[in-house]
Amino acid sequence: MGQNFSTDLAREARDLWQKSAGEVPEGVTARREERQGFVFEAVEIRTDDAAEKLGMPVGRYVTMELDALFRREEDAFARACAVLSEELRTQLRFSGGESVLVVGLGNPDVTPDAVGPLAAEQVLVTRHLKERLPADFAPFRTVSVFRSGVLGTTGVESAQLTAAVVGSIAPDRIVAVDALAARETGRLCRTVQITDAGIVPGSGVGNARQALTRDTLGIPVVSVGVPTVVDARMLCADLTGTEPAGLSPGELFVTPRDIDSRVRDVSRLTAYGVNLALHDGLSVGDIDMYLS
Amino acid sequence: MGQNFSTDLAREARDLWQKSAGEVPEGVTARREERQGFVFEAVEIRTDDAAEKLGMPVGRYVTMELDALFRREEDAFARACAVLSEELRTQLRFSGGESVLVVGLGNPDVTPDAVGPLAAEQVLVTRHLKERLPADFAPFRTVSVFRSGVLGTTGVESAQLTAAVVGSIAPDRIVAVDALAARETGRLCRTVQITDAGIVPGSGVGNARQALTRDTLGIPVVSVGVPTVVDARMLCADLTGTEPAGLSPGELFVTPRDIDSRVRDVSRLTAYGVNLALHDGLSVGDIDMYLS
Amino acid sequence: MGQNFSTDLAREARDLWQKSAGEVPEGVTARREERQGFVFEAVEIRTDDAAEKLGMPVGRYVTMELDALFRREEDAFARACAVLSEELRTQLRFSGGESVLVVGLGNPDVTPDAVGPLAAEQVLVTRHLKERLPADFAPFRTVSVFRSGVLGTTGVESAQLTAAVVGSIAPDRIVAVDALAARETGRLCRTVQITDAGIVPGSGVGNARQALTRDTLGIPVVSVGVPTVVDARMLCADLTGTEPAGLSPGELFVTPRDIDSRVRDVSRLTAYGVNLALHDGLSVGDIDMYLS
Amino acid sequence: MGQNFSTDLAREARDLWQKSAGEVPEGVTARREERQGFVFEAVEIRTDDAAEKLGMPVGRYVTMELDALFRREEDAFARACAVLSEELRTQLRFSGGESVLVVGLGNPDVTPDAVGPLAAEQVLVTRHLKERLPADFAPFRTVSVFRSGVLGTTGVESAQLTAAVVGSIAPDRIVAVDALAARETGRLCRTVQITDAGIVPGSGVGNARQALTRDTLGIPVVSVGVPTVVDARMLCADLTGTEPAGLSPGELFVTPRDIDSRVRDVSRLTAYGVNLALHDGLSVGDIDMYLS
Repeated sequence: MGQNFSTDLAREARDLWQKSAGEVPEGVTARREERQGFVFEAVEIRTDDAAEKLGMPVGRYVTMELDALFRREEDAFARACAVLSEELRTQLRFSGGESVLVVGLGNPDVTPDAVGPLAAEQVLVTRHLKERLPADFAPFRTVSVFRSGVLGTTGVESAQLTAAVVGSIAPDRIVAVDALAARETGRLCRTVQITDAGIVPGSGVGNARQALTRDTLGIPVVSVGVPTVVDARMLCADLTGTEPAGLSPGELFVTPRDIDSRVRDVSRLTAYGVNLALHDGLSVGDIDMYLS
Repeated sequence: MGQNFSTDLAREARDLWQKSAGEVPEGVTARREERQGFVFEAVEIRTDDAAEKLGMPVGRYVTMELDALFRREEDAFARACAVLSEELRTQLRFSGGESVLVVGLGNPDVTPDAVGPLAAEQVLVTRHLKERLPADFAPFRTVSVFRSGVLGTTGVESAQLTAAVVGSIAPDRIVAVDALAARETGRLCRTVQITDAGIVPGSGVGNARQALTRDTLGIPVVSVGVPTVVDARMLCADLTGTEPAGLSPGELFVTPRDIDSRVRDVSRLTAYGVNLALHDGLSVGDIDMYLS
Repeated sequence: MGQNFSTDLAREARDLWQKSAGEVPEGVTARREERQGFVFEAVEIRTDDAAEKLGMPVGRYVTMELDALFRREEDAFARACAVLSEELRTQLRFSGGESVLVVGLGNPDVTPDAVGPLAAEQVLVTRHLKERLPADFAPFRTVSVFRSGVLGTTGVESAQLTAAVVGSIAPDRIVAVDALAARETGRLCRTVQITDAGIVPGSGVGNARQALTRDTLGIPVVSVGVPTVVDARMLCADLTGTEPAGLSPGELFVTPRDIDSRVRDVSRLTAYGVNLALHDGLSVGDIDMYLS
Repeated sequence: MGQNFSTDLAREARDLWQKSAGEVPEGVTARREERQGFVFEAVEIRTDDAAEKLGMPVGRYVTMELDALFRREEDAFARACAVLSEELRTQLRFSGGESVLVVGLGNPDVTPDAVGPLAAEQVLVTRHLKERLPADFAPFRTVSVFRSGVLGTTGVESAQLTAAVVGSIAPDRIVAVDALAARETGRLCRTVQITDAGIVPGSGVGNARQALTRDTLGIPVVSVGVPTVVDARMLCADLTGTEPAGLSPGELFVTPRDIDSRVRDVSRLTAYGVNLALHDGLSVGDIDMYLS
């Protein structure tokens, strides 16, 4: 959380750059379309120059808007999982039976940071089953799950722990799930960002030590992020035009009233979308059954 | 949560009235003092006219500031419990062996609303033990605990449920614990309000149906409240001078980054203060032991 | 938990009486049938004499065996909810728009006792919504939910608290959900008992003070119970033929290895079955949607 | 869990061998003493032959009996932490500022398996703080924490994950915390075993792949284990003299009625004992303060 635009969403960073610079940033494209009733906006950061401007690495950043899910349209959950899984597959570029490590980032004991750990609980884990019963689990991809914890409760950067696990079990792909910071309160728990740029927490492209990217881990990293907080300082700045004195960045957060249930819902959506992306021929009902 | 000043703290309501009216409200007194390193501010609303101005019933409202607790001064927790319990005793006006019902208000599954339920878990329950082993538990007051839940998960107003329980077990006093809304972010989880005016949720003095007060329940009601949220709309209004369009009251909340752990800590303080107030001769260590 | 046969299941009490007396108890009938792949066994205790022999009040006791659910047959969850709801409707004898209070009994913090509280979380609560938006919620029955807690954490018998709530909101029916004790380990979390005899905890028909029955509450009480524990003392007694010295009743429990997930699953089944029984035209998918 | 004597406690394995063989096993010594009111029994397995007989590797196995803690003697918790920490220090053989990795083994979502994860939450983590503020944290040892999860929720053996983390952060010592299986129900949550033999889960000395020992990890491993379950099959076998047909090993467990609160209490004791062992000059009150 906390690029120089105080957002982890590429579409917000793009808008903010455009607003402050008065022009569309070069090397950045954006495309908006509807898929099965859900609005997708794909932002591509194509050049290093554009990456520096927006404070995010080169890559494809797709946001999916969940409004249709919250209008409780018929079959909305199943449709949302399906279109989310399609975008994940596009970015994961499987060519065969690649194995996958799903990394749940964040602190399970802090509600707005619990998206990763909650999603991790609902990912179908198959690595050990395929080892023991290869024939029975042949239709499934090899999937393992790692909950990295956070620096304050482990003493170790989650990127370092993840790299150690990657070195040991040698997956072919990583799917990283994390909570994000946004700038617009209307996006909180109502948007999912899927990107092949991995995860670069903190201060954007500069802080390579903490990054989970193809560069640092040696394999493709697709991340699924859900904005759950807006820094109260940025909300104030956006409203008043000046950053308030006496309010440090990251001290106070703005969250929806029903953050607890929304985080649960969006974590389930994320996990189910990941499950559908990783295994052929699964349905939402199958996942319900396997998880029970 | 949500008087006409959008705060449940009498001291904030008083300040806001003074700011908007340009003068000290008549019928309201305030006194500030330090007790064992903790700042206490006692606001007395003495007249119906003052009650109407501040949007809160007549009564004594004492806020205790917890800064010394968070500076981790030596023995700070034990001292905080002690001074909190003293104020509770002052307001409970025991003359002998009065029985007490502790009511934990709020939703245990919504972090900023969980102060009441979390405190309820740490209150020493004695009513059934005194009935079975009267001699062994003679030194203890008769204490029972009721978790009222919230309208959305019970279908019934918590005041109605509490009244039913009061009618059935006939306690002599009620201690109600609840989360509050504040106006100043600096007070979140850093202040406790103790009042003999009971609890009047929602729109202040008008909404008698939902109130837990001596008037509605027939016995003295002392409430302990902890502000955990500021309405994002009010924060914006305070910063910009106008209420933001497109942001409904109660839609977005401002909370501290570490709300989960702060709510746990302040709930424990509240429960321990209540335990010390209700039983003579207890220490913090005794409560630790009884709760394990 | 703990009739004189150390079971809360009428079918076990019947079998045990037959085994010890060498004959079928008079005034007790039993019938076994399959409904949509699930085995139902209906035991009717018809006379006071039979009630005394089995240590359970007169009434209809139906056990539903969940084996088909755990074999993960197609649509097993939806079918299980449907047949459970049919039996509930049979026993609830609705003639029109009766209102219902669902009571979740037990301790949410003790896994094998958490069936009631966990089910309560998944019951659709409508009472407050129907009051506010009568037209929108016309198709729904009036449902409220009460979590009674347990004596050790409230100081008050759950039957007394329930009676107080019944007196205040005046429902027409009660559905009580609770964990039970069984005698056969093979039934743990694999059986649901539905009975119109209500709940008579502890020592069977004698202990009227703690009972939730039509007699004590004045309205029909249907209870849904799930056996989650076998008293280790009874398991030993069954295996060795003598009750072991030095092992008190209720001191040690036998539970399945995966009690935590099984209790979650069976609580969900119970809640969904109740929801389907109380509202016409609902589907499992609808409940998923309303609860999210 | 599950040596050939179906116990993870060396003192039980020793007693069972003696009972079955009719003689004291050679190469095994045992000594019993009281320390500050707590009974300690030290079993030393000295030879490979003895290790094979008892199904446990060579090492020092000390059990501490917690009865004094549950009698609620004055200061019992502080005394228990102190004597536990002394034994840990004896086995950890620090000679200077060695760094320590604390590994919490087990499944946080399965009550009797949650000792490791619950203890991990209460271990003071210092590694990141010492890196950032070396002067301020000079008095503290470098401590990091790893929660390994279980095979079913990660897909990877916990020993493999732990080895990967050890390789990455290179600690000097490991303290592993885990739940154990016992044979005697009276020891459940009432005994702590501290051993320098590390952890060899499953089938005893044979299964090196899953072991966390000096041999597999290259550094000293001290483990703290708490028995929380007895296999119901073994309880039956002990009572009847024959293993019951139709009851698989590990299918049903015997646990205390109040397993949830006992597991919480003993996890706290374990964590506090570890904290005191790792840092000089700490008190129980200090840990309370740092954890809040």
